Amino acid sequence: MAKASKRTAIQPTREENYPEWYQQVVKAAELAENSPVRGCMVIKPWGYTLWENMQRVLDRMFKETGHTNAYFPLFIPKSYLEKEAQHVEGFAKECAVVTHSRLEMGKDGKLHPASPLEEPLIVRPTSETIIGEMYAKWVQSYRDLPILINQWANVVRWEMRTRLFLRTAEFLWQEGHTAHATEKEAWEETRQMLDVYAKFAEEYMAMPVLRGEKTEGERFPGAVSTLCIEAMMQDRKALQAGTSHFLGQNFAKASDIKFLDDTGNTQFAWTTSWGVSTRLIGGLVMTHSDDDGMIIPPRLAPAQVVILPVIPKDEHRGPVMEACESLKKELSAITWVDGQRLDIHLDARDLRGGEKMWHWVKKGAPIRVEIGPRDLEKGGVFYARRDTGEKAGCSREEFVGKVTTILDEIQDGLLKRALDFREANSKVIDSVDDFRAFFTPQNEKQPEIHGGFAYSHFCGDPALEDQLQKELKVTVRCIPYADEAEPGTCIFTGKPSKQRVVFGKSY
Amino acid sequence: MAKASKRTAIQPTREENYPEWYQQVVKAAELAENSPVRGCMVIKPWGYTLWENMQRVLDRMFKETGHTNAYFPLFIPKSYLEKEAQHVEGFAKECAVVTHSRLEMGKDGKLHPASPLEEPLIVRPTSETIIGEMYAKWVQSYRDLPILINQWANVVRWEMRTRLFLRTAEFLWQEGHTAHATEKEAWEETRQMLDVYAKFAEEYMAMPVLRGEKTEGERFPGAVSTLCIEAMMQDRKALQAGTSHFLGQNFAKASDIKFLDDTGNTQFAWTTSWGVSTRLIGGLVMTHSDDDGMIIPPRLAPAQVVILPVIPKDEHRGPVMEACESLKKELSAITWVDGQRLDIHLDARDLRGGEKMWHWVKKGAPIRVEIGPRDLEKGGVFYARRDTGEKAGCSREEFVGKVTTILDEIQDGLLKRALDFREANSKVIDSVDDFRAFFTPQNEKQPEIHGGFAYSHFCGDPALEDQLQKELKVTVRCIPYADEAEPGTCIFTGKPSKQRVVFGKSY
Ligand SMILES: [Zn+2]
Ligand SMILES: [Zn+2]
Repeated sequence: MAKASKRTAIQPTREENYPEWYQQVVKAAELAENSPVRGCMVIKPWGYTLWENMQRVLDRMFKETGHTNAYFPLFIPKSYLEKEAQHVEGFAKECAVVTHSRLEMGKDGKLHPASPLEEPLIVRPTSETIIGEMYAKWVQSYRDLPILINQWANVVRWEMRTRLFLRTAEFLWQEGHTAHATEKEAWEETRQMLDVYAKFAEEYMAMPVLRGEKTEGERFPGAVSTLCIEAMMQDRKALQAGTSHFLGQNFAKASDIKFLDDTGNTQFAWTTSWGVSTRLIGGLVMTHSDDDGMIIPPRLAPAQVVILPVIPKDEHRGPVMEACESLKKELSAITWVDGQRLDIHLDARDLRGGEKMWHWVKKGAPIRVEIGPRDLEKGGVFYARRDTGEKAGCSREEFVGKVTTILDEIQDGLLKRALDFREANSKVIDSVDDFRAFFTPQNEKQPEIHGGFAYSHFCGDPALEDQLQKELKVTVRCIPYADEAEPGTCIFTGKPSKQRVVFGKSY
Repeated sequence: MAKASKRTAIQPTREENYPEWYQQVVKAAELAENSPVRGCMVIKPWGYTLWENMQRVLDRMFKETGHTNAYFPLFIPKSYLEKEAQHVEGFAKECAVVTHSRLEMGKDGKLHPASPLEEPLIVRPTSETIIGEMYAKWVQSYRDLPILINQWANVVRWEMRTRLFLRTAEFLWQEGHTAHATEKEAWEETRQMLDVYAKFAEEYMAMPVLRGEKTEGERFPGAVSTLCIEAMMQDRKALQAGTSHFLGQNFAKASDIKFLDDTGNTQFAWTTSWGVSTRLIGGLVMTHSDDDGMIIPPRLAPAQVVILPVIPKDEHRGPVMEACESLKKELSAITWVDGQRLDIHLDARDLRGGEKMWHWVKKGAPIRVEIGPRDLEKGGVFYARRDTGEKAGCSREEFVGKVTTILDEIQDGLLKRALDFREANSKVIDSVDDFRAFFTPQNEKQPEIHGGFAYSHFCGDPALEDQLQKELKVTVRCIPYADEAEPGTCIFTGKPSKQRVVFGKSY
């Protein structure tokens, strides 16, 4: 007999249909929705505030590592894309092309594109080529280096199949672009920014990540090497959460970024680029949420505490609201991580208590506090943790005193839970049979959650990697950073392998 | 004989050629430059940090007045623009049209647009129509109102003649879009946001502004009424620095934003929109800068104080740099307006002292501090104010103690200077002859700085306004807020006039 299942706030559950569960969580949390413009999403206030919080932390980290922000044009002349051969190949297939600069009323009473441009413009899918063009103007001598600039911007990649946050035609991101006098310095920058991303993912998103290098097939078009952070989602698939590219002199040559070194010789600069995007929001949802909806790590939550007044009768409204307002004021004055004040939301809407409570469960607010007439008498509050579901009452004074401790516990608990999940679903695999079994669902028609991260020896053959992708939808997620690389033999070919790599299915 | 003129850091001077002076100030301050993409600018780090500072203050003001941020698509389907007749007319003539979603390699070895879209997309020139479409989905009942959302975004208007910050094809801005249940509430919002802009302009930019209403001819396409803030630049022309539009039910009808009111009747919502853009940076430059370059009001400066080490001999480097670092640390800990810490920049570059000093003069840093070996001996510093050119020495301790007082003085002094300038160049004009004389340059071939704000009675006839624009390039900048409207007769037609309006030439 089937186990009688508790009715969950999100239908279907993760087990029942993971992709649909994801869409429903995003919808129920009011993070974003599809717009009438194909593939372009609308990021709603709760989702956008989450993005603003991510931006605030990342922006501080970028500035602490010596970067400043600037802004470059949305449009890239077609001829710029043509400069770097691999880069074109990577992006030409999916870009929005602007061809006209005016609309004109036709005889049919409708507007038609008019004033064709001499050269079509591409809406930036990434900005290496246009930024490279500017750097070439700005750099003459080694004294002009390094250039350490970041840009917060929107970009467009014309994806055919889109999913909110994970893959959309337009998305928001930051792209760092740096130019250096030496290869060594550019490599250090590439690694440093990957570490910044890893720190952000783990300490703020509570999302454990593997750091590593991409194989040739998964590299950024035009890069010499792509470093990445990879996280495991609850369906055990990998999400590439951030990348940092060592571009060598490829783009410097394409854009002619040259400088006189201190011995008077002309050299090409060494460049890097690195980015994370609103995709991180998708990663955050799929790392922590449960069958009742979103769970947001407190350090990034648009509101760490939501206060819900309980007003059984109209006569209670005055005193209850007063107590809620005063608690909000007191909590809002508390500083927590990075000296930031707590964000406290008081939901004074005229809704049934149950409806209101579920609203905030689905939105993933870390702590909900209820105050009703009986709490007033006792000077108490009743609170609930979103992560564990734990509910408790205590004096208002006690709650104010321990709120940041509870938030720390939630933050740490979410990271630990996600780490345990990843470890439980990571496996050292030394035979092809085991590898195939690991990545093959039991039910082909409605593939259930399966697989995970496989640590296996691999010779690095791109053709073999292609074949695995076609057969099993499995790719090398990364060649992980390893303190001591342990050599072995490729499980597929028996050829030598320098270290185990991480295989997985991915978003 | 001509007065022997002091050589200025910016050539030409304002008097010699104001438009060219502006371009040179922007260039010398490294605020922005033209990109290879026609009409699109690159905002360089110093200019972008100024924009970030503006954003930080405005964003706080928007949130304090109950707004939240969200993000809507970059692209607008052509059919949406067609929904509001006046809106189309206003924007169809100057928009970037996306017609293809791919580039394909041709036989000529070049990329060509491929995969034509079924319906062309417009790169947003403003977002009323796409946001209206979403609001129509989100609003069912009066309980869903008001919606108070702001968006920070890039927009594109295909201008033929562009000038950095003042008029560019792509620019950055914020656009607030609100929907309300009643006309009264929408009007209150429209006025409130104009007041927010006026407060920001005066208290942060130190740029005095007139608040008022636009005439029909200058109204936002599709609005019922456009309120504006207008500032006077140093060439006595007006700059429209921000607008707040009461849209009535026009856009609600075009986008079908309807709700059930509390009596069960279906009504159209009342909407507003309001925006300021990177144009404000142009206004700031033209309000305060002088013939030696940029002058930035301290409250928005990317660095309030720049510390310049003076190192005559190599043996001085260690102790001087140490003193500079320690002063930087001490100053950086000081909080000033809105609890923000001071931004202190230490320029440790290996450049000649004079070159370095002029660099920061041209960039407009409010205070420059020099520390050399002799200052060390006395425990003193030498500082210079950018606004007055005043230079003084004092003990380091004294400087730390009074730095925020000096910054306040600079901030207040800039506002007062700009206000005096505007008052000196504003004139009550009661005859057509005086009006013509006021707005006519002495030298037609190289028009010198002339004119200003003329306060005159006007009957409001749009045809007359058109004629004045053609003949004199003069328009009604605004019908100013007036405590007591003083009626009179139009100086052109003798017809009745409710109050004096403000005429001026403009950007
Ligand atoms: Zn192999
Ligand atoms: Zn008249």
